Amino acid sequence: MLARHNPQLNKHGELIHLLSTEGLSRDILTHILDTASNFVSVADREVKKVPLLRGKSVFNLFFENSTRTRTTFDIAAKRLSADVFTLDIGRSSTAKGETLLDTVANLSAMAADIFVVRHSESGAPYLIAQHVAPHVHVVNAGDGRHAHPTQGLLDMYTIRHYKKDFSNLTVAIVGDVLHSRVARSDIHALTTLGCPEVRVVGPKTLVPENFSAMGARVFHNLEDGIRGADVVIMLRLQNERMSGALLPSSQEYFQTFGLTPERLQLAKPDAIVMHPGPINRGVEIDSDVADGRQSVILPQVTFGIAVRMAVMSIVAGNEA
Amino acid sequence: MLARHNPQLNKHGELIHLLSTEGLSRDILTHILDTASNFVSVADREVKKVPLLRGKSVFNLFFENSTRTRTTFDIAAKRLSADVFTLDIGRSSTAKGETLLDTVANLSAMAADIFVVRHSESGAPYLIAQHVAPHVHVVNAGDGRHAHPTQGLLDMYTIRHYKKDFSNLTVAIVGDVLHSRVARSDIHALTTLGCPEVRVVGPKTLVPENFSAMGARVFHNLEDGIRGADVVIMLRLQNERMSGALLPSSQEYFQTFGLTPERLQLAKPDAIVMHPGPINRGVEIDSDVADGRQSVILPQVTFGIAVRMAVMSIVAGNEA
Amino acid sequence: MLARHNPQLNKHGELIHLLSTEGLSRDILTHILDTASNFVSVADREVKKVPLLRGKSVFNLFFENSTRTRTTFDIAAKRLSADVFTLDIGRSSTAKGETLLDTVANLSAMAADIFVVRHSESGAPYLIAQHVAPHVHVVNAGDGRHAHPTQGLLDMYTIRHYKKDFSNLTVAIVGDVLHSRVARSDIHALTTLGCPEVRVVGPKTLVPENFSAMGARVFHNLEDGIRGADVVIMLRLQNERMSGALLPSSQEYFQTFGLTPERLQLAKPDAIVMHPGPINRGVEIDSDVADGRQSVILPQVTFGIAVRMAVMSIVAGNEA
Repeated sequence: MLARHNPQLNKHGELIHLLSTEGLSRDILTHILDTASNFVSVADREVKKVPLLRGKSVFNLFFENSTRTRTTFDIAAKRLSADVFTLDIGRSSTAKGETLLDTVANLSAMAADIFVVRHSESGAPYLIAQHVAPHVHVVNAGDGRHAHPTQGLLDMYTIRHYKKDFSNLTVAIVGDVLHSRVARSDIHALTTLGCPEVRVVGPKTLVPENFSAMGARVFHNLEDGIRGADVVIMLRLQNERMSGALLPSSQEYFQTFGLTPERLQLAKPDAIVMHPGPINRGVEIDSDVADGRQSVILPQVTFGIAVRMAVMSIVAGNEA
Repeated sequence: MLARHNPQLNKHGELIHLLSTEGLSRDILTHILDTASNFVSVADREVKKVPLLRGKSVFNLFFENSTRTRTTFDIAAKRLSADVFTLDIGRSSTAKGETLLDTVANLSAMAADIFVVRHSESGAPYLIAQHVAPHVHVVNAGDGRHAHPTQGLLDMYTIRHYKKDFSNLTVAIVGDVLHSRVARSDIHALTTLGCPEVRVVGPKTLVPENFSAMGARVFHNLEDGIRGADVVIMLRLQNERMSGALLPSSQEYFQTFGLTPERLQLAKPDAIVMHPGPINRGVEIDSDVADGRQSVILPQVTFGIAVRMAVMSIVAGNEA
Repeated sequence: MLARHNPQLNKHGELIHLLSTEGLSRDILTHILDTASNFVSVADREVKKVPLLRGKSVFNLFFENSTRTRTTFDIAAKRLSADVFTLDIGRSSTAKGETLLDTVANLSAMAADIFVVRHSESGAPYLIAQHVAPHVHVVNAGDGRHAHPTQGLLDMYTIRHYKKDFSNLTVAIVGDVLHSRVARSDIHALTTLGCPEVRVVGPKTLVPENFSAMGARVFHNLEDGIRGADVVIMLRLQNERMSGALLPSSQEYFQTFGLTPERLQLAKPDAIVMHPGPINRGVEIDSDVADGRQSVILPQVTFGIAVRMAVMSIVAGNEA
């Protein structure tokens, strides 16, 4: 996906678009996480807001619906004092037959500073980033199965917050890895940040062997997969993305891959449990785990705002 | 609905959520109305805005559509300098099978300060208030047939504005009382504020006898119901909430319960006519009355913004 | 449409509503363009924003969808520091049977300062302007086939920017003139501003002879129509507005009326090409022209924000 030249960086190697965690150096990832740590006090409302993006325009371009992600970007942008414009793309010019690139050119001409793009097609944010006016920065809010880099980064933030350091960690990503852009973004970020063992765990239909090429160990048995883990990232069973024949029933799935308190005991005693949300209680995760002392699912949401503030303030501060 | 402990109040007896006018003391109701009077100059644009909620986040959670009510809350919040986030809940995580309480927990983690909740199920805002993080305040913007407390409070504000005092008033609430959350909120507030005679007026199918248990006198004849009244509150004939067999035709309804200039002469000469809107001209109210000198329907709208500013600033100022 | 008294002006002849370019004097049009020139630095982000409408409320009342136009008004209002409220009218009280004028009266009572109105019925913004409270200003964002005055004004701004002066210009408006509110607004503005030759060019079904009554020369042949032109304004082929029998196929249309590089050579060498967007590549305009050196389609978008800022700040500054 990434050509020789990394379109996320300017000639000084500074981040100007966030399209994927793939291809970002450990320095850049660490810079984002460090910046985010300065914004946690804003995200959790100790500090009300900061004027870093005052007068800047953030356009939410959601070609695919996502109230949750859109809202967190909206909050992050407004906490930075930006003006936010949410465009209902489904009802807009695209419907009138305008090409994606013409839409983008028009929106650039409206003097947007940041485009937050969610699209069902993998690669759409790359295409947009290659064609925007030089003053526009693109942040990928999820494209197809490809990437969801701000989710990946908030996962990294959460892990670093609770575990301090990636250098001795075993992280298990459990569930529908095949259809998960979150899993891909997590794997790239974890390996770059020096995590020595990243595992992907799930049934063969949802965790193909070729994930080992990304540097992850593949497990088809939950007990083996989470044994000794420091971090367990449960993925949502994305029923809406699966075709019929591959679809396990919710009950079947829970029996073999649902995270119960008993199974969680196989992980380290201080293991944390994460989930990108929204959770399916009794499908991929037991309520006692979701609401239990090891769950950090709700802190992830708060950290997500800090991370999105960090990404937007960083890209907006660098010139193409 | 209210348990022994009133979930609207903290241990100091201060308002932290507004869920219903039921269970609120005369002191609290009066405090809201007094506070609202300070905001009328903002509502009617003499003063542009005030910084009371600067940096605070108000989430509009409308599980049921209402452009009018949502807009007045939006205006009230922005006049207080809050950031407002409108969530299209129908398209959001709820649709993905997330439970209401998980949605609420997630939104709390986004560091909302106020949830404005409209829901088709009676009691939903109570359930939410019982489960939000301590820093979140819930304002009910209408739940099922149960309550619409800010509408009730703006009605009280309007009455007090024109009549100064509740202690000698006769107030007639006319129309589809059965399906009206406004009527319930008005009756509770009026009786608490010392109004000696509250009447509910309408056909037997829409005004059951058991309303007398709430302290209201029941009338099934419009002329009797409004005779000598100081205030006539007309309710909207909510066709969309009624089942077929009970549904009078609009013409039939107007002939027996429509407020005409002739019938209004039975009320006191200085009686005011109110309506929560939107009005059905020629159904529950004659155009000559709606546009006449005794109508205060449009001032109600302006007062509604002041009242919503008051409620949001009061709850946000009190700790759980 | 315009009565003896021009509803757009107060008794001092100052602009209080923008409903049409028809009936506005050269002085007023020039004043709008001059004011817009002060806002171009805001529109293109050299200057972040200005506080001219701080605390004012702009209501976007789009009875007909238009993400593009709505967004440019939204941007313009926020760059003026106004609060913007977008009302989803299709889902609102109108659906509950409330009359347009009752909706407008209610919205006035919410203390709006500016209504931006898009409506599928010609004349709707006039009706609204005649009934709003005195403190509310109405800006027409497109009504039926009648007018789209801010598009007309941004076209004038663009022409003046590139051509300096209207007094020697030949301007050709090409395409579906019959269904175009843009064309009507352009013709009125161009003739008032002293443009000596305005041409309307298109097939007989889309350019009726009676346009000559508006002061335009009618051409049914593209080559003749653009020969020697200084400005070529291409209109969108509005398939959605045409009935079947009159509908040329896209290919047919392009062959006879599509603007190709070869045809453009018939215009003056320094002719500019404009289009209100969204463009149909290969239907009314060839990609080589749309993306070529004579195209000013994207600058039009930026100027549109400056012009809308100018219109809103001017009307809001004048008393009814």
